[in-house]
Amino acid sequence: MTGRHGKPLGVAVVGYSFMGKAHSNAWRNVGAFFPDTPAVRQQVLVGRDAAAVKAAATRYGWADAETDWRAAIARDDVDVVDICTPGDTHAEITLAALEAGKHVLVEKPVANTVAEAERMVAAAEAAREHGQRTMVGFNYRRVPALELARRLIAEGRIGSVRQVRASYLQDWLTDPAAPMTWRLRKESAGSGVLGDLGSHVVDQVQHLLGDRVVSAAGHLRTFVPTRPGPNGPERVTVDDAAWATLETTNGVVASVEVSRMATGRKNALALEVYGDHGSITFDLERLNELQVLEGPGGEAAGARRVVVTEPHHPWVGAWWPPGHVLGWDHTFTIQAAELLTAIASDTDPAPSFADGLAVQKVLGAIEESAGQRGGRVDVVHTQP
Amino acid sequence: MTGRHGKPLGVAVVGYSFMGKAHSNAWRNVGAFFPDTPAVRQQVLVGRDAAAVKAAATRYGWADAETDWRAAIARDDVDVVDICTPGDTHAEITLAALEAGKHVLVEKPVANTVAEAERMVAAAEAAREHGQRTMVGFNYRRVPALELARRLIAEGRIGSVRQVRASYLQDWLTDPAAPMTWRLRKESAGSGVLGDLGSHVVDQVQHLLGDRVVSAAGHLRTFVPTRPGPNGPERVTVDDAAWATLETTNGVVASVEVSRMATGRKNALALEVYGDHGSITFDLERLNELQVLEGPGGEAAGARRVVVTEPHHPWVGAWWPPGHVLGWDHTFTIQAAELLTAIASDTDPAPSFADGLAVQKVLGAIEESAGQRGGRVDVVHTQP
Amino acid sequence: MTGRHGKPLGVAVVGYSFMGKAHSNAWRNVGAFFPDTPAVRQQVLVGRDAAAVKAAATRYGWADAETDWRAAIARDDVDVVDICTPGDTHAEITLAALEAGKHVLVEKPVANTVAEAERMVAAAEAAREHGQRTMVGFNYRRVPALELARRLIAEGRIGSVRQVRASYLQDWLTDPAAPMTWRLRKESAGSGVLGDLGSHVVDQVQHLLGDRVVSAAGHLRTFVPTRPGPNGPERVTVDDAAWATLETTNGVVASVEVSRMATGRKNALALEVYGDHGSITFDLERLNELQVLEGPGGEAAGARRVVVTEPHHPWVGAWWPPGHVLGWDHTFTIQAAELLTAIASDTDPAPSFADGLAVQKVLGAIEESAGQRGGRVDVVHTQP
Amino acid sequence: MTGRHGKPLGVAVVGYSFMGKAHSNAWRNVGAFFPDTPAVRQQVLVGRDAAAVKAAATRYGWADAETDWRAAIARDDVDVVDICTPGDTHAEITLAALEAGKHVLVEKPVANTVAEAERMVAAAEAAREHGQRTMVGFNYRRVPALELARRLIAEGRIGSVRQVRASYLQDWLTDPAAPMTWRLRKESAGSGVLGDLGSHVVDQVQHLLGDRVVSAAGHLRTFVPTRPGPNGPERVTVDDAAWATLETTNGVVASVEVSRMATGRKNALALEVYGDHGSITFDLERLNELQVLEGPGGEAAGARRVVVTEPHHPWVGAWWPPGHVLGWDHTFTIQAAELLTAIASDTDPAPSFADGLAVQKVLGAIEESAGQRGGRVDVVHTQP
Repeated sequence: MTGRHGKPLGVAVVGYSFMGKAHSNAWRNVGAFFPDTPAVRQQVLVGRDAAAVKAAATRYGWADAETDWRAAIARDDVDVVDICTPGDTHAEITLAALEAGKHVLVEKPVANTVAEAERMVAAAEAAREHGQRTMVGFNYRRVPALELARRLIAEGRIGSVRQVRASYLQDWLTDPAAPMTWRLRKESAGSGVLGDLGSHVVDQVQHLLGDRVVSAAGHLRTFVPTRPGPNGPERVTVDDAAWATLETTNGVVASVEVSRMATGRKNALALEVYGDHGSITFDLERLNELQVLEGPGGEAAGARRVVVTEPHHPWVGAWWPPGHVLGWDHTFTIQAAELLTAIASDTDPAPSFADGLAVQKVLGAIEESAGQRGGRVDVVHTQP
Repeated sequence: MTGRHGKPLGVAVVGYSFMGKAHSNAWRNVGAFFPDTPAVRQQVLVGRDAAAVKAAATRYGWADAETDWRAAIARDDVDVVDICTPGDTHAEITLAALEAGKHVLVEKPVANTVAEAERMVAAAEAAREHGQRTMVGFNYRRVPALELARRLIAEGRIGSVRQVRASYLQDWLTDPAAPMTWRLRKESAGSGVLGDLGSHVVDQVQHLLGDRVVSAAGHLRTFVPTRPGPNGPERVTVDDAAWATLETTNGVVASVEVSRMATGRKNALALEVYGDHGSITFDLERLNELQVLEGPGGEAAGARRVVVTEPHHPWVGAWWPPGHVLGWDHTFTIQAAELLTAIASDTDPAPSFADGLAVQKVLGAIEESAGQRGGRVDVVHTQP
Repeated sequence: MTGRHGKPLGVAVVGYSFMGKAHSNAWRNVGAFFPDTPAVRQQVLVGRDAAAVKAAATRYGWADAETDWRAAIARDDVDVVDICTPGDTHAEITLAALEAGKHVLVEKPVANTVAEAERMVAAAEAAREHGQRTMVGFNYRRVPALELARRLIAEGRIGSVRQVRASYLQDWLTDPAAPMTWRLRKESAGSGVLGDLGSHVVDQVQHLLGDRVVSAAGHLRTFVPTRPGPNGPERVTVDDAAWATLETTNGVVASVEVSRMATGRKNALALEVYGDHGSITFDLERLNELQVLEGPGGEAAGARRVVVTEPHHPWVGAWWPPGHVLGWDHTFTIQAAELLTAIASDTDPAPSFADGLAVQKVLGAIEESAGQRGGRVDVVHTQP
Repeated sequence: MTGRHGKPLGVAVVGYSFMGKAHSNAWRNVGAFFPDTPAVRQQVLVGRDAAAVKAAATRYGWADAETDWRAAIARDDVDVVDICTPGDTHAEITLAALEAGKHVLVEKPVANTVAEAERMVAAAEAAREHGQRTMVGFNYRRVPALELARRLIAEGRIGSVRQVRASYLQDWLTDPAAPMTWRLRKESAGSGVLGDLGSHVVDQVQHLLGDRVVSAAGHLRTFVPTRPGPNGPERVTVDDAAWATLETTNGVVASVEVSRMATGRKNALALEVYGDHGSITFDLERLNELQVLEGPGGEAAGARRVVVTEPHHPWVGAWWPPGHVLGWDHTFTIQAAELLTAIASDTDPAPSFADGLAVQKVLGAIEESAGQRGGRVDVVHTQP
């Protein structure tokens, strides 16, 4: 299958560091594992440093490199714009790309503020009329074990959900001597771990349950208030750790804990979902496993350790035989396949910008609550 | 070693169901494992049903049975009164026993209300002048792995603690058809899971850190609002699940989640303590293990799985060779040994009534916060 | 229920160190947890050091102490003789006790040689005519999780068994400087880890499957050939580690590995049983858990982690509510209850001396095979 | 860096099913993660079915497709021949490719017989004189956790190794109704699970220890002796499961168990290495983890769970930040990088054909031993 002019779909990725590398990997490999998706061409990689982006483009398989994202967007041979830059630039690039008639994939969080996210949702809705597709990069939706979890919950396999216990713990800021960066300044990063890891957690809660958070009580903490900058100590203006208790439309209570100070936790997204006759738990450090408890069972009742590597598991058939585990980067390849499938079938991919906005609203409510000593704040979602 | 009159210390246990059985087991076995503690005599078991308490007394190794706790307390051959009745009776029995000159061990929570707990603390302080010892039965302080955790933290092995993630999850109320009981009525039980399991968690947080909670933000939920009673549905007036974010004097943030609705969790007390250069995690379902991460380490850094069954581990030398695991009930035997040691050495055993009061104050603040949509409530401790 | 003369059954335990302590604990507590078994009286503890056995008797709850096992056996107030001495004395004491009309419980291995075991079986059969009961102390048959495993296998829940993977690893001889003891001399100990831990493993294989081993190929190794004795280095004449591949009547292949040199393994009895449509795995370091895989399952197929602490699990109802884990020593209490139940009901307890003999024959075949470079040796069992 | 003529190195892969797909993936991605290796060009994919290999070539990123492997080898633009066909064709293709002056990577096992492997070793030695590199595809040497294990052992971190406990369990033949295939016929497959999975295990034992197996005692079993073929039941002439006890030059004893009938095990390569003051364990189902026990330790001694995702871990720096786990397929990318590095630096890559031959000799000894009821068979290695 091909793009607009009978040719492969041309892709531009904006950004070439961590996320740009992961997305490049996805575009380079998607066709090998998902041959029924439209063919793609890795057209152009965009970055500000001309030499560095040129080297990255060669390395990651891109035909061209470019320092001006506007020029990349303007190219006729580009059909999909994939935005991997920091959150404060998402709205501007997205709006321009949609204006230029492109499909858009934007990394999470969809934007740093609710206002920007709302503008993006509006632009996406308008572009949809012209067949343009938009998507937010919550890649953990593409972990086969988590997609299996979502399906099992939707099928009622654990009954009606009551409680979710969610956390995402890292430890890269444990050392007080770790230097100041743009990620620790509110003006550039929007927030700290809340936006970075909390956005994944809140999206998972809403996605796994097929539900929306309607109120939040939160607590934020900056454990290391100043960090060394080039000219002496600088004030950290974002959170190092965050906690929240969320309520959803269906009355589920979800507890959330995210941190960059949890010594020993490298990338530990952990989810526990308790229904009235079963439960599901997941730990990203064991990405290919899911623990599933169903029904009351008899004397051999207990949670099953599901090794999610069978051909009938979500997306797994595209890869290897049972027991041959996938890694973190495969989630981006699946994400690319999902976007391509949506483009080819003229359907809306998920997660939508509206999903991204819904997450931002919850994060905003957590921050607001934390600012008023934890009092609960309501979250109002617009449709859908 | 012996009691007041050169004879073994006489013990009375008040209550003969779950806790009475566990405490009886402790008194029956303490001398076999801790031969250096004073000798004890299982003098009398107290319960309201004459036939049932008589049978239990025979079964559990007691010399006598008694239906009136006042009569048991009045006995000259009773030196220690061990109270295993529901929380609303603790204050009355304790005050009477202290008045009668006995040492007192009281099950947790120390009382159902802060006011009662304060009266008990005052009485304990007065009795202390006469050499009487008082103790609250937070038996999880006697899990060797948790005592090891406390020591490692106190030695600074994980550095300065920043975050604690604590939960205690059970599932015995998952089924909405489970019948109404006194435990689900506020007037008899005081609170629901918050007092029952939350008290253990809050005591552990304070004890592991050697610190006090100074503020709390909380959330409570009753998932099943009515349950079948003998004459039709009755209203459940206590919480099924509770959440809190606590702050301590030293600035630690501890998240707490307790539930009786966490399908699949039978008795899952889980603790994670994150310091600035290490961490410790524990799970009661694997009572003999502790996960300990220390220092930055090199390429082989990681959390150690400590199997806490070595002779040099706390209290373990009293039992079996390495690898021969202890069970839940052994914690009560250790608790009895600790009380006996305190009596023999004229020192104050821990946890004290004041520790029990400190827990009650935190639980009270959580409830108060939950009543005002989660706004943070300060906790004021008196000395120490 | 009571003993022969309307009185409680009198018990004598011979031996007061590790096993004597564990068995004393069992007799002291059996009535508290299994009230329907005959009442027992802890009559006499036997040991060679008069002062030490007297102290142990007091500590462990025995009415008397005795230095001569013959005198203990001769007592009229002793109905049950429980033998906790080294294996080379089992036959003599057992035969004398049976001769004196007592019921006999003997620690594993039933004897150090096949010849002794055969004499014991014969004596037990004769005594059985007079209503005397005999039993071997393979206490791991009393681990609730392993009894559950046996039942599930017997019910066909994992289908027809094909393979068993079994190991029992300890590390207390890792250090070459650990001193010489009687356990490391063939004349006193019979064999090394093969008899000590291998006997447990072979009994489990035969018991779990309800099957007998019919041939064995084995390998033995002494990693540390000399150890310090009081007068200089002495030769170790038993095995430090042993391996075997066993075949059973039903064609199951069981691999066995036992070692005292497996650094880091404290008491790790691990069993994996693979049937043609399921599997079961167990690890003694997590004594209250069993992993059970049944049937092909669908997308949520996987092994269940069964926490074996429910009232409907084997023997568990005698103890605590769900999730309150048992320890290693509880297996001996259950063992005592099983013997008492058999005595009261005039039925044969298991494991029988014949079971013990069957284990010894397999161990003998492994040794014989190892002596001829691993060539397979047949095992001939007599009935049953 | 480039190939012989200043151009990228041209690669041909022979075979396009499971292994061909995995190797294609490696060649497509190696440059993105290892930019310092010579540039490669995916020149030609070879397979017997013209249409299928054409489709696969397009899908997997190859410039051309070819049905005749001789034609592919003859191409001037091919510098590296990567052989992913069944074992009985390895020798012929390898010899031809070396004759044609190419570098050769051959999938494991290096050949189906010792005789073929010996010819390949001789040819590799001759070709080495002309700067040609040869390598066997034991990809598990490229699991970062296993390479870390090897380094730690080599550094003496666990002391002198005494025992290895190794297994590789799968379950894809559990169902007796699974149909007959070429893999179950001795003439095409050489052996059953012994050659397939046993070769990996034996290579790991020799590689992790830097040692050679010098004797083997073995046992083989075909649990399902006939399977449905197109014209009725056919006899399975290879093993379904195999067991062995190996001895090495340094006196280590390694037990090996491999099976295709271990219900519930999907791809479970498990290794436990016990040294005299430490141990290391690994499980392929948790590919990014290693359990490491070092030294006697104090009260917090225990095996560390090392999450092998740090930049300083072997090869990991080429990928993602800490905690972002790799999958099974990444091992092939690393393997390609290692071969390219060897080519560029004119050094010998590992594992060599001689390593492959050493594995085949051990497998041969196991089979021979099994044929004589388990008697131990010596293995004679030629240099090195």
